[in-house]
Amino acid sequence: MRLALGIRYNGQGYQGWQSQLSGQTVQDKLEKALADFARKRIGTLCAGRTDAGVHGILQVIHFDTDIERTPNSWVRGTNRFLPDDIAVQWAVPVPDEFHCRAQALARRYIYLLSQSPVRPSLEAGRVGWSMRALDGDAMRAAAALLVGEYDFSSFRASACQAKSPVKNLRRIEITRIGEGERCRWQFEFEADAFLHHMIRNIMGCLVRIGHGDERPEWISEVLQARSRVVAAPTFSPDGLYFLGPLYDAKWGLPAEATMQSGRPAYDGWA
Amino acid sequence: MRLALGIRYNGQGYQGWQSQLSGQTVQDKLEKALADFARKRIGTLCAGRTDAGVHGILQVIHFDTDIERTPNSWVRGTNRFLPDDIAVQWAVPVPDEFHCRAQALARRYIYLLSQSPVRPSLEAGRVGWSMRALDGDAMRAAAALLVGEYDFSSFRASACQAKSPVKNLRRIEITRIGEGERCRWQFEFEADAFLHHMIRNIMGCLVRIGHGDERPEWISEVLQARSRVVAAPTFSPDGLYFLGPLYDAKWGLPAEATMQSGRPAYDGWA
Repeated sequence: MRLALGIRYNGQGYQGWQSQLSGQTVQDKLEKALADFARKRIGTLCAGRTDAGVHGILQVIHFDTDIERTPNSWVRGTNRFLPDDIAVQWAVPVPDEFHCRAQALARRYIYLLSQSPVRPSLEAGRVGWSMRALDGDAMRAAAALLVGEYDFSSFRASACQAKSPVKNLRRIEITRIGEGERCRWQFEFEADAFLHHMIRNIMGCLVRIGHGDERPEWISEVLQARSRVVAAPTFSPDGLYFLGPLYDAKWGLPAEATMQSGRPAYDGWA
Repeated sequence: MRLALGIRYNGQGYQGWQSQLSGQTVQDKLEKALADFARKRIGTLCAGRTDAGVHGILQVIHFDTDIERTPNSWVRGTNRFLPDDIAVQWAVPVPDEFHCRAQALARRYIYLLSQSPVRPSLEAGRVGWSMRALDGDAMRAAAALLVGEYDFSSFRASACQAKSPVKNLRRIEITRIGEGERCRWQFEFEADAFLHHMIRNIMGCLVRIGHGDERPEWISEVLQARSRVVAAPTFSPDGLYFLGPLYDAKWGLPAEATMQSGRPAYDGWA
């Protein structure tokens, strides 16, 4: 039987999603908890590998098992063995043709950024920071130049394992919350898939443009260069959240993971 | 010269506000940072001592010093020596008659509560949790019975050092965010002052009523008993945030700490 699980986590204490020898990744903690509950080793695949320090609002994983338990029993049983900052949200039996990575039609991320003369404190590790004021119109003009199907090599980490650097970036939505010198910004990204560090590299460029250090059109030059060296440095992982993958409704996953329902799972409370 | 400072902090890693021999309190970290910056010991007083695990959106402190620095220099200089999860927001010179505790006309707190079959994870330590659904109307009916000037001994910790158990609870506002089984609740409290554990003890009773385990009128019986033993157990500190004290505008503090401006400093992003 194949099972899909929705996972939520705070990435602050972990070396990213992907399993490592250190054992200090979210996947390591999850597979250990699954093994403690199921009393046998369970290997998992995920929809989007997040970097060290990046958070998961809805990660989706799948695995095969011959253990017969109700979905609710998988959720409660696994959560008993997980650390406080990781929890399974739901479990759904899926057809064998379902594959959390291959069948994801879209992936969404949100970046939370605090604009303030004072660094984050209460929200340290959970938001990015700009000490200087940001120009929303300039950032939106630049973001619009990236929307479409392009070769995103300029925004790709050297360690990236993706087969192709061509991705379809469908949406970047930039929202300012609050007036005055201190405010916060939300950057929502949606694409078929993202390259390694792609969002953090785009964020670095958008913030540089928001500061007025480059014109919005500069981002087109960066895109066309297809070279990592021209872009701004990779932005902090602190404010980055994986909102989750979206699938065809036929798989029977919860609405938050279903393309047709369309609403992000983010409730502004990360 | 007397200075007032606004402080923001995540209380998860600390044994509360008030200085202890362990040195693991927010006041200890703040006074160490002030001493590192000023190169002499500085004793501080605060507007509201928070419990272990309770967060500060706006704590206000004051101290006297003969060191001449600009307010901005106090903010930046002290923040350099503070841990990541504590930061000074502003510094304002105040008249010698200003006293952050005695002159506070009101204090406000907010409690964030997650209603979900699954425990908090991404927000562990920063929100309270109710696995069962809560009845907002019942909780609001109960809260209305507590608004006014009363002897709140039933909601007072035995360690409470307040001179009088009579407080003027001016407002409890309960807001539900989101529909369905999974949602979040905000409880906003405003009073002239609060007794030790008063909000967490009220929260314990409101949640019991929200679960339907007691009628709303039961809270009046608890209040009238003037005895701690009749109330519900003290609720978790995780979701409790000190929104801050409010002062007369004559002191010249920022709008978020001024009675007349009236808007809470909470931006929903804690």
